[in-house]
Amino acid sequence: MARVSQAHLEARRRQILDGARRCFLRDGFHAASMQDVLREAGLSAGAVYRYFRSKDEIVAAVAHEALGVVRAALDAKAEAEEPPAPDELFAHVFAELRGLMGAGEDPRELPRLLLQIWSEALRNPELAEVLTGAYAHLAGQWSRIVADYQRRGWVDPGADREKVARTLIGTVQGYFVQQALFGTMCPADFEEGLRALTRASVPRSADAESAGSER
Amino acid sequence: MARVSQAHLEARRRQILDGARRCFLRDGFHAASMQDVLREAGLSAGAVYRYFRSKDEIVAAVAHEALGVVRAALDAKAEAEEPPAPDELFAHVFAELRGLMGAGEDPRELPRLLLQIWSEALRNPELAEVLTGAYAHLAGQWSRIVADYQRRGWVDPGADREKVARTLIGTVQGYFVQQALFGTMCPADFEEGLRALTRASVPRSADAESAGSER
Repeated sequence: MARVSQAHLEARRRQILDGARRCFLRDGFHAASMQDVLREAGLSAGAVYRYFRSKDEIVAAVAHEALGVVRAALDAKAEAEEPPAPDELFAHVFAELRGLMGAGEDPRELPRLLLQIWSEALRNPELAEVLTGAYAHLAGQWSRIVADYQRRGWVDPGADREKVARTLIGTVQGYFVQQALFGTMCPADFEEGLRALTRASVPRSADAESAGSER
Repeated sequence: MARVSQAHLEARRRQILDGARRCFLRDGFHAASMQDVLREAGLSAGAVYRYFRSKDEIVAAVAHEALGVVRAALDAKAEAEEPPAPDELFAHVFAELRGLMGAGEDPRELPRLLLQIWSEALRNPELAEVLTGAYAHLAGQWSRIVADYQRRGWVDPGADREKVARTLIGTVQGYFVQQALFGTMCPADFEEGLRALTRASVPRSADAESAGSER
């Protein structure tokens, strides 16, 4: 076998993953065959099997990369000494995502890929494990951020920080769902919605009724 | 053809949909075959084809029913004169969902089915249309609720009510994602998280920095 540079290996792997991602987005993980991936990547079976033994391995690599993009985008801001408000933090994450994904890319591509990865993970234990790890990392990171919000008096110190963290993570997952399915929500819309929600002054249950009838 | 009662037709249709839902949850929409659905429903091909012409029609019917369950749960409360706070409203919705789905059912079943429906809708235009209709209904309903919150001074009257509505819908979609994938969040946890978020006092961007450094 001819000796090839690390850069060449990396470029070839990149070519396969980009082709596979395009296939998966167009046809789904199940309908896209290894043949489709080869054709899309413009490579022979021999060239691809040198890097990945099966379609499942390619699926896992594409998923791993997509989750890595989300993680890198958050890591860049989450470690700050005094993390910004949730809507500002997500604005940074979305800006990072745009940078990481390349300007020409369809903004719905990542959300659509994530939706497929979540669904596939329901029946693919390896993928489920990758997702569980990524989620645990996210939940830990957001829990620390919420603790900081509590210290600054932004969030009720009596609230369970992990539950608040998970609900915040959920708002972005919901954004991805809506962006993937309907394309109706851009990051700026989501940020405006979250800004209003985290600055709402909803009364506690006990005084809800009287507050309502006062007006 | 023998004359059969409406109740008999309805019961048979129920039997098919229940069997199909079990199949889809176990194997996914793609891997589950018409044969699997027949076996699971305990019916012959002739009996099933009398109700549904194809697996796609069954998929659409199962999806339509699942979305209907979510819609019915919300409708029961959303039309109230003065809708309760978001966390209380969702508590009602989750309680309704439990009632509608039957006590013995796995609480992760509906979230897992929804995740599959979303993913499938990326490549199935009929399913996408069903989802778009359901989402438009939800967004309209929540926009009216948010308008009421604004009237009561709970939410900034300057905020775009539709964006706030979509972000609120997103929190539940995120809850479904986490419940389906990780089973880590029960409705009560989500309600606690949302309660803290909608009662947070995050300062406006301009004074965020000074508020942070005060402490």
